[in-house]
Amino acid sequence: MKLTLAEPRYLKDSVSVISELVNEARFKITPDAVELVAMDPANVAMVIFKLLSSSFIEYNIKETTELSINLDNLKKILRRASPTDVLTLELEKTKLKITLKGRATRTFSLPILELEEKEQKIPNLNFPINITTTKAVLDEAIEDVDIVAESVSLAADPETFIVSAEGDMSHAQIEIKQSEDTSIKVEGDAKIKSRYSIEYLKKIVKGGKLSNNVSIMFNKDYPLRIEYKVIDKLLLAFILAPRVDND
Amino acid sequence: MKLTLAEPRYLKDSVSVISELVNEARFKITPDAVELVAMDPANVAMVIFKLLSSSFIEYNIKETTELSINLDNLKKILRRASPTDVLTLELEKTKLKITLKGRATRTFSLPILELEEKEQKIPNLNFPINITTTKAVLDEAIEDVDIVAESVSLAADPETFIVSAEGDMSHAQIEIKQSEDTSIKVEGDAKIKSRYSIEYLKKIVKGGKLSNNVSIMFNKDYPLRIEYKVIDKLLLAFILAPRVDND
Amino acid sequence: MKLTLAEPRYLKDSVSVISELVNEARFKITPDAVELVAMDPANVAMVIFKLLSSSFIEYNIKETTELSINLDNLKKILRRASPTDVLTLELEKTKLKITLKGRATRTFSLPILELEEKEQKIPNLNFPINITTTKAVLDEAIEDVDIVAESVSLAADPETFIVSAEGDMSHAQIEIKQSEDTSIKVEGDAKIKSRYSIEYLKKIVKGGKLSNNVSIMFNKDYPLRIEYKVIDKLLLAFILAPRVDND
Repeated sequence: MKLTLAEPRYLKDSVSVISELVNEARFKITPDAVELVAMDPANVAMVIFKLLSSSFIEYNIKETTELSINLDNLKKILRRASPTDVLTLELEKTKLKITLKGRATRTFSLPILELEEKEQKIPNLNFPINITTTKAVLDEAIEDVDIVAESVSLAADPETFIVSAEGDMSHAQIEIKQSEDTSIKVEGDAKIKSRYSIEYLKKIVKGGKLSNNVSIMFNKDYPLRIEYKVIDKLLLAFILAPRVDND
Repeated sequence: MKLTLAEPRYLKDSVSVISELVNEARFKITPDAVELVAMDPANVAMVIFKLLSSSFIEYNIKETTELSINLDNLKKILRRASPTDVLTLELEKTKLKITLKGRATRTFSLPILELEEKEQKIPNLNFPINITTTKAVLDEAIEDVDIVAESVSLAADPETFIVSAEGDMSHAQIEIKQSEDTSIKVEGDAKIKSRYSIEYLKKIVKGGKLSNNVSIMFNKDYPLRIEYKVIDKLLLAFILAPRVDND
Repeated sequence: MKLTLAEPRYLKDSVSVISELVNEARFKITPDAVELVAMDPANVAMVIFKLLSSSFIEYNIKETTELSINLDNLKKILRRASPTDVLTLELEKTKLKITLKGRATRTFSLPILELEEKEQKIPNLNFPINITTTKAVLDEAIEDVDIVAESVSLAADPETFIVSAEGDMSHAQIEIKQSEDTSIKVEGDAKIKSRYSIEYLKKIVKGGKLSNNVSIMFNKDYPLRIEYKVIDKLLLAFILAPRVDND
């Protein structure tokens, strides 16, 4: 196996975001993509990552390979890659070899872990709501509600996407209208509302490092899906369990 | 009541500075200005704040209103205002409603507190010394003395403003002469000297966020008054008790 | 004694770097230079500092003078010097007087310590390897190995300078070839390798604040010498004891 990236940031930034949710994870390297599907330890969020073979300048793999890696250690190494370095991944027995070629040639090797965990299945979800907006709009809304509460309500009707939170004392509400930046698609006319953890969302919206646009899909008391895409390069998506009131 | 600011930073930066000294405070909204007079919990420093109605693009108030607010919570909300947001304050029963209009419309509400405390009177003080200088000159002098001691002596004669501090081992002295940047007015010829807490001064000089110029007024073993002004917009002033030697 | 520097950063940045290794030190002020030779408290690293009289605009000294100073306190004062300040050092009885002249005239005084310690002799060392490179190349290599281990191996043959580290699990290796930026001089053909503490090297490479170029000299299981120079101005050098395996 030999995979070479001329733009190491696609891998670097993705692993940096994923490692906030997942400690150790299994990469599956198929002829089409480097893939990862993993749950956070609390089983609240799923990460789905796909780095397409078309983002590599060399993608040499004979058969689908799985390798489990400590993401924190991988992140520390990838952080050393400067934007102009050429990054190569190779398998060497029980090690993953990472080469950064710039002014100097720097080689790192990381142990491959034995991860017992069974493969994660991506659940089949249907979303009546699909909102596309800029990362700045979503980031600001999450930062806004973070100052008053721990969970946020997302609601949408065909005209408006509403992000709101109710603290013990204070309240915050952000109204985002259909606009050049924001497209709102809602099946039916009803206003649908659901609640999610702000702590998780703060980690998830770091995916905005990878793309200026973000898709937000949800349903009443149903998981939320957030997607960052770079066309022909990568997908970084998250599925977050809802917070359902027990009263 | 409906007050609208096109430049939210006047309120944002002021509350950020005031909240370093005062936790909860009563705003008095008169037909002329939004005002606040408060003591810090240790009774060492008084804050005087006035945001003139002329700094608002909409200033709609029927009668003078008083409302007490937790300044930390208010600061967190105001911090979310970007320079291009339009900020509106409204009273809604027991809540203060703050609206930030930019790309999205963001609404926050904060509880109005019941503050038993009696109204603070601004003391009537006379200062034989009045120094006007740039915030950079004052900020640097305070940072200079901060590395050697906990209290600073201010002294002035008609030619020179002297900021000095005596630590256990080290000593620092800053001489600031009359100049284009610095005007020194002293009644009489005597050199007057007084001592103040550096810890408080470090919080007070953050008022430099609001104005490039600062006025410094003091007298021997007498309170210090520091003032930041934006003409036709606002006043942020502090009165700091002196440190008097007990020997 | 009166010494005046128009570019305070030579003293400021040097003391900032030296103070990471040494707490109190004796400066020797000769007609030629301000000099310092000191060991770190653990006796692992020696610092050699020489600020030539030619870097001063006024260098007035009658006889060679020694004065011991707490470097942390000196650093705090020098940090207050802005790049355009003119810095003057004077002896006043048991105090070192430091004047910063800019917009204001700022004077600090620091106690001179009585340091019992005997004078440090610079050891006479011979190095078969002498590598000159940019600070960026050395800094990056040290940061690279820092993520996998606590000690680093330096090795060189006439073509390549190799910086490598072996952690419990991970491994890092940086190959730096002869190039426009990097000159490698090795006596003989043999590949020489030696091991040093990364913790100390991270402090030493901060000398890069002073010069873009760095010289690296070492030998097998022998001290390492790292040198930063500004022609006609200053020398900041470090001698670091090797880490020798006990097996």
